[in-house]
Amino acid sequence: MSAAGKLVGVGVGPGDPELITLKAVRVLEQADVVVHFAKSGAPGNARAIAQRYLRPGIRELPLTFPVTTELPKDEAAYCDLMRTFYDAAAGEVAAHLDDGRVVAVVCEGDPLFYGSYMHLHVRLAGRFHTEVIAGVSGMSGCWSAIGTPVAQGDDVFTVLPGTLAQDELERRLAEADAVVVMKLGRNLPKVRRALERTGRLARAVYVERGTMAGEKAIPLADKPDDCAPYFAIVLVPGWERRP
Amino acid sequence: MSAAGKLVGVGVGPGDPELITLKAVRVLEQADVVVHFAKSGAPGNARAIAQRYLRPGIRELPLTFPVTTELPKDEAAYCDLMRTFYDAAAGEVAAHLDDGRVVAVVCEGDPLFYGSYMHLHVRLAGRFHTEVIAGVSGMSGCWSAIGTPVAQGDDVFTVLPGTLAQDELERRLAEADAVVVMKLGRNLPKVRRALERTGRLARAVYVERGTMAGEKAIPLADKPDDCAPYFAIVLVPGWERRP
Repeated sequence: MSAAGKLVGVGVGPGDPELITLKAVRVLEQADVVVHFAKSGAPGNARAIAQRYLRPGIRELPLTFPVTTELPKDEAAYCDLMRTFYDAAAGEVAAHLDDGRVVAVVCEGDPLFYGSYMHLHVRLAGRFHTEVIAGVSGMSGCWSAIGTPVAQGDDVFTVLPGTLAQDELERRLAEADAVVVMKLGRNLPKVRRALERTGRLARAVYVERGTMAGEKAIPLADKPDDCAPYFAIVLVPGWERRP
Repeated sequence: MSAAGKLVGVGVGPGDPELITLKAVRVLEQADVVVHFAKSGAPGNARAIAQRYLRPGIRELPLTFPVTTELPKDEAAYCDLMRTFYDAAAGEVAAHLDDGRVVAVVCEGDPLFYGSYMHLHVRLAGRFHTEVIAGVSGMSGCWSAIGTPVAQGDDVFTVLPGTLAQDELERRLAEADAVVVMKLGRNLPKVRRALERTGRLARAVYVERGTMAGEKAIPLADKPDDCAPYFAIVLVPGWERRP
């Protein structure tokens, strides 16, 4: 373990800039380098939320994904491309750590829960000091914004990626109490069918841009189209045995 | 809907006082009444974390559970007791709201995710303005504190209460990618057996008092006893198809 710099995964929360933690603010104020993942050069929400806390003239390291998230992930070519990208990104971060810098990787939501940060973490945690600042997850932001209790007591809570095959979605929905389906985008028609076939559609709520400007929430059964951004979610509350 | 007071469920995070959000701090600083759930008169972590932000002389409403959480929950007598308790608690809170006060209910973790606040919320949201401040969940605090990536890509993530029967735990563990088992306490021997029988024990990590003083984390297979507080968790990381 090098005594040099420190890698910090900083969860900045679900989108509302006030849902960042005191600890994340402190780390951002002290960081030497700020890293963010970006799609096609767009810096994204996490970098925007962090902006007000960064030192003037802080070093920046944007990491731009080589492909979008909607390519077929089972393909070896996709995995190779992403592995090469994360290896190179970890190399760039390591150079700053070797120089003794504190490197803050800003992450929407919670860094170790479906976040890109973990690809850097697993490549660097053996060689450098690391710290992870837990954040409010995107899904917590969504269900809180619409005031919908999700899980209670002996409920089983399940997160299903909308990228799963329809039969797998149906099988898992059929035995779930409380569910979040994420990664909607073009998967929404399939997710809607799976909810309908398992009798869950009437309880399902569609949430888009939870906690942010332009937030939308509507019972999925009332949503007239199947247009959805990739980061929208469908929430199926559990808690049917409430006292 | 009354134009009177406002009910706010305030998530204060997993235990580390720095993992509270800016929004929770602001709400606590402005609240007229602070409510906390308590066991046998012990105020608990959420109330302690909130302390530094409350106005001097703020009105207090402690709500003391009539029974502990380890009684058999399927019994009608338990449900009746809890229903009566929550009804009375909602009545006490409503009296403050009718008087135009802002009532902050402090909650460990995230208020609408296995939290007691939701029992007040569902009883009062139809009559009063409500707001829910999402918090960092206890489980996010745990996996971040030990730097363990949990779920990625197409992983299915499942939260299982340790109170489930062993055969149900096994059935659900067998088809899960990433799992958190919560509500351990005296359920730990059963949870350990279920993990062993489904080949998950080697990956399971036991975490107690995550993000707090006295934090303990150990591979469950190395834990020499089955002593566990109720709020300890077992974490089974997913993400076996990492790029």
